[in-house]
Amino acid sequence: MIIVIKDNQMTIIDEIRNRFEGTHEVFVHHNRVAIQGISETDLTQDEKIAADAIIDNVPAAVQGSRLFHPEDTVITTKHSQIGGAHFTMMAGPCSVESAEHVMKMAKVAKSGGATILRGGAFKPRTSPYSFQGLGEDGLKYLRAAADAYDMDVLTEVMDQDHVDMIARYTDIFQIGARNMQNFSLLKAVGKTNIPVMLKRGMSATIDDILNAAEYIAAGGNHQIMITERGIRTFDNKYTRNTLDLGAVPVLQKLTHYPVIVDPSHAAGHTEFVVPEALAGVAIGASGLVVEIHDDPAHAFSDGAQALKPDEYRQMAAKAFAIRQLITTPNEEKSEVTL
Amino acid sequence: MIIVIKDNQMTIIDEIRNRFEGTHEVFVHHNRVAIQGISETDLTQDEKIAADAIIDNVPAAVQGSRLFHPEDTVITTKHSQIGGAHFTMMAGPCSVESAEHVMKMAKVAKSGGATILRGGAFKPRTSPYSFQGLGEDGLKYLRAAADAYDMDVLTEVMDQDHVDMIARYTDIFQIGARNMQNFSLLKAVGKTNIPVMLKRGMSATIDDILNAAEYIAAGGNHQIMITERGIRTFDNKYTRNTLDLGAVPVLQKLTHYPVIVDPSHAAGHTEFVVPEALAGVAIGASGLVVEIHDDPAHAFSDGAQALKPDEYRQMAAKAFAIRQLITTPNEEKSEVTL
Amino acid sequence: MIIVIKDNQMTIIDEIRNRFEGTHEVFVHHNRVAIQGISETDLTQDEKIAADAIIDNVPAAVQGSRLFHPEDTVITTKHSQIGGAHFTMMAGPCSVESAEHVMKMAKVAKSGGATILRGGAFKPRTSPYSFQGLGEDGLKYLRAAADAYDMDVLTEVMDQDHVDMIARYTDIFQIGARNMQNFSLLKAVGKTNIPVMLKRGMSATIDDILNAAEYIAAGGNHQIMITERGIRTFDNKYTRNTLDLGAVPVLQKLTHYPVIVDPSHAAGHTEFVVPEALAGVAIGASGLVVEIHDDPAHAFSDGAQALKPDEYRQMAAKAFAIRQLITTPNEEKSEVTL
Amino acid sequence: MIIVIKDNQMTIIDEIRNRFEGTHEVFVHHNRVAIQGISETDLTQDEKIAADAIIDNVPAAVQGSRLFHPEDTVITTKHSQIGGAHFTMMAGPCSVESAEHVMKMAKVAKSGGATILRGGAFKPRTSPYSFQGLGEDGLKYLRAAADAYDMDVLTEVMDQDHVDMIARYTDIFQIGARNMQNFSLLKAVGKTNIPVMLKRGMSATIDDILNAAEYIAAGGNHQIMITERGIRTFDNKYTRNTLDLGAVPVLQKLTHYPVIVDPSHAAGHTEFVVPEALAGVAIGASGLVVEIHDDPAHAFSDGAQALKPDEYRQMAAKAFAIRQLITTPNEEKSEVTL
Repeated sequence: MIIVIKDNQMTIIDEIRNRFEGTHEVFVHHNRVAIQGISETDLTQDEKIAADAIIDNVPAAVQGSRLFHPEDTVITTKHSQIGGAHFTMMAGPCSVESAEHVMKMAKVAKSGGATILRGGAFKPRTSPYSFQGLGEDGLKYLRAAADAYDMDVLTEVMDQDHVDMIARYTDIFQIGARNMQNFSLLKAVGKTNIPVMLKRGMSATIDDILNAAEYIAAGGNHQIMITERGIRTFDNKYTRNTLDLGAVPVLQKLTHYPVIVDPSHAAGHTEFVVPEALAGVAIGASGLVVEIHDDPAHAFSDGAQALKPDEYRQMAAKAFAIRQLITTPNEEKSEVTL
Repeated sequence: MIIVIKDNQMTIIDEIRNRFEGTHEVFVHHNRVAIQGISETDLTQDEKIAADAIIDNVPAAVQGSRLFHPEDTVITTKHSQIGGAHFTMMAGPCSVESAEHVMKMAKVAKSGGATILRGGAFKPRTSPYSFQGLGEDGLKYLRAAADAYDMDVLTEVMDQDHVDMIARYTDIFQIGARNMQNFSLLKAVGKTNIPVMLKRGMSATIDDILNAAEYIAAGGNHQIMITERGIRTFDNKYTRNTLDLGAVPVLQKLTHYPVIVDPSHAAGHTEFVVPEALAGVAIGASGLVVEIHDDPAHAFSDGAQALKPDEYRQMAAKAFAIRQLITTPNEEKSEVTL
Repeated sequence: MIIVIKDNQMTIIDEIRNRFEGTHEVFVHHNRVAIQGISETDLTQDEKIAADAIIDNVPAAVQGSRLFHPEDTVITTKHSQIGGAHFTMMAGPCSVESAEHVMKMAKVAKSGGATILRGGAFKPRTSPYSFQGLGEDGLKYLRAAADAYDMDVLTEVMDQDHVDMIARYTDIFQIGARNMQNFSLLKAVGKTNIPVMLKRGMSATIDDILNAAEYIAAGGNHQIMITERGIRTFDNKYTRNTLDLGAVPVLQKLTHYPVIVDPSHAAGHTEFVVPEALAGVAIGASGLVVEIHDDPAHAFSDGAQALKPDEYRQMAAKAFAIRQLITTPNEEKSEVTL
Repeated sequence: MIIVIKDNQMTIIDEIRNRFEGTHEVFVHHNRVAIQGISETDLTQDEKIAADAIIDNVPAAVQGSRLFHPEDTVITTKHSQIGGAHFTMMAGPCSVESAEHVMKMAKVAKSGGATILRGGAFKPRTSPYSFQGLGEDGLKYLRAAADAYDMDVLTEVMDQDHVDMIARYTDIFQIGARNMQNFSLLKAVGKTNIPVMLKRGMSATIDDILNAAEYIAAGGNHQIMITERGIRTFDNKYTRNTLDLGAVPVLQKLTHYPVIVDPSHAAGHTEFVVPEALAGVAIGASGLVVEIHDDPAHAFSDGAQALKPDEYRQMAAKAFAIRQLITTPNEEKSEVTL
């Protein structure tokens, strides 16, 4: 249940909190108090009087809900703002391959307007015998490349025991699709104050990902963004996954966290990455995260889906233009009357 | 197998056709000859010499394939062009409700730039006890409304025995998702010379829809457009279907038929129709088909997904602007060198 | 709404029927009256008094519902009984290939305990250029073979214009998965008095198939059986479809129609057909329909999934034994007390 | 590539191992040597001569493959044998609720023939605010209950940092569906010598789960069983997941690990658990794992799917009978000749 407190009754919030904390989960956001597991009959007469509105049927993932937190969350890092009116480009290689290569890729990413450099140093590979990433060395190269171009670092954490170490290098943690319900990992990043990009699992429903985000929020970390990266459906002959772009406005209605689109993993093939990226912008995502490579055929991982530098820059120019177009009110007035 | 004939050897085409017809399916498009069920060893020495290229691994749906017919199909009706460089807006009510109402809706559709008026007179309803449409009277109202505003008619045919009757009223047949593999119906419209909009079945793969289109083409009707309208996936709590926008560039690569997006049935709720429509334009569709209604709460069918007149017009203005943006080359030159 | 009438008030049924018919769909089964689109407040005081119970939240597919028709439907043909306590084996070739071949297959089918001979004379093929069946000649061969071994005929009807002709040869119509929502076809077989096997569409929900069955029942034909034959999911590398056996007890709870399992199309490969068939029996299906062939490598269609005669007979022997086992009460008493 | 060495050439195995180890992954099982990333041209003339057969196209998950390890893996714990000719019943409450309750449930489990007691002490819950399990205390109660009835313990490990602690109480680790691709956790249990039950992820393909098992095997632990527990599909109105029983014979063909069926999580409702369980036996699974509870309405978690003691015992009696039936050759000879 959420109680919306009247402006002139805000002092009751502490009383409510004190009364329920210990026995219930209680969350406060401005004039809204969410209490898990109670109903209106549990409120005192004074509390009811102080309420401007009482909202039942609140989802379990209450801290992420617009009902509890109506305004957009905007995440601020050193070089970027994510969410709200902002549009953010994130680009980089799938894997950090070497100090030189990630430096080169940072330059490309920046040239297309990216303020966040992505790159994997610990790679979740389907087979135990595949390349597993450069590890901490990779993180050093990634950090250096981002610093050289005044960008933020985004990199994946796969293991709760790596959180502290990776925290020394990254500005944003990525939780990958396969770990979306690795609750120990979610709790571990929830205890940090570093923003988290949470990728939707391949068969995660909208509610599943909001509950996964809630595991992070429950630890006190509210700087969360949610990334749509394609789901598993019956049709995967020509694309790797089905990009569920319809999830973007649905998520934006339900949650205040920024919603990002990753067209690379969904498309799986370069030729489909650009149109899926532009569609992601048109549908209203707060940003894109794309994989780039100057020599995709020799990429350490996922080369088939990496954009070449020129493809990336042309896509990015279109993306910013579409973003501007959809956020500008139509000039022409509707003059037809029925 | 497809044989691409050299420019100076075109006379051999008739010989090849004569040699194989009767025992094999043979199709000719300009300098390309497709023959089902043979391989290179079945060709004579002369035929091999006349060939500029021989293409194996041709899909069964050969007439729809870009390998056989590389250039875009452009469908021309009295008021519209569909495919190629054209972008086409199609709008109208889900069901034709009355002569007056469809006339009013035609005015709205036209005001947003639509050149094609959609409307259902025979409705495929999940339950036999639901409203099944106004039948032939509905077609008359629809035709009159389209004529009044210089538009083409698009309406669904559900039954092969209705083809001739509906042909008297419509400019384009719609085959609905549930009938995508109703082969008798596909054959029936394949024998007409009226363009067909074929909607993707809810669990149809890309190959399935191309094969369904081939049933129409096999009858001699090549004026086909393919419409993505959402597929069935594990997640349908907030949207009715999952709009598989990634299918649009995939289809455009594989087939020369125009690809249209129907955001209304996928989204299922008005608030998600507009962003899905704009994403459909950004991903490169040749057109949109959307449901509109001035009083959605009292629509005879599918009111929850109908755009109100103003919502529709604003969406349409953005849609045309995005179309122009994505089809205009970027002005700025890429000046970064690696 | 369904009204269950008290035993001593049955005369009111005709009054209710007369009062609502014309404006509402009204169905009567023994002491149950179903009326579409009304609620308890629409009843008179007398009607309420005559009611033993009033059931709201009745599904649209009311005639198929256990709420309206609690007892099992048992379909009786010349040689078979299907549903209730009966277990029915149906077998035969995918396609009727020749008079001789189908005769041979009938002998095999019979030897495994089948009382129904299946065989396709009109084949729904994904590609228009594939073998489409022998047509009416095939039906003649199939009929002759069934008669020679005292079996019933089960064959697919794909086209409403074929219903009368096929009715001259078959004992049971099959509606295939692709036509599950071909409403014109459903209506056409609904007007006959020939039993119908309705196969679940590849992405049909439980409710979808019950609504499709209702189209048949709405025409007056209540001899319907429902067949689970595999659905489309994300995993189709090793099997053709995912056999949703869990749907069998779900359907049996919701509807009184017999539920049959087709393991052949789901498995797609012979080695998986037998275990899927036995699982279908163990889960409680009223029958199996399987494809058999003496020379699968040269079958006209779907050879990969056809059981050879010995495989079929061994499967059938196990199937009947499992059926007997699961329908026999456990002898041993539970003697553990908590 | 796998090289099958001739019986009289076994001494070459050590030479091959020495030549490739360090640069390639090399695995030896009896007379089979698997080497990742090489092809026949990399072998010496002597090596080719020593080979009885050379197998290309080996899956990445080579240690789990029948091509490398043709005979069934049989896992032996103190009270149970799993795999091969054995059939194993595993039962217990979803959550360990108290010392007394799990003791009572152990008695029930045993009375139905179970030799393995399942119970969760660390629960993966969708919401962070749901009951998360009794933790180590729960493990103590579970261990005591299993010991009292001479049973083995099966319990879930969700966190790599818990592996050592849980190892002190359990005989078999369970890895849940949500953690199927938590590679750090897979590696952690792979370093122990405790058997692992790996549950299939909700959208994991057959290849995905075999690769996940390979992460365990790569650490040296080959005592793995794979559990089918239902996948996510478009239809989840009446059952929680779609039990993909067809995956059982597919897995048994591809891998030597025992395959277990969990009908409880798939069915989601008690009334469907029993038929799904029996179908799991009929399709050939090596065992069942089912949830039981004496008072489902008050279970701490997942009560809707728990079998009551009598339901469980009746199911188990049928299950053992079906197992015996399907593993006994048919007595009757096939006497029909074509």
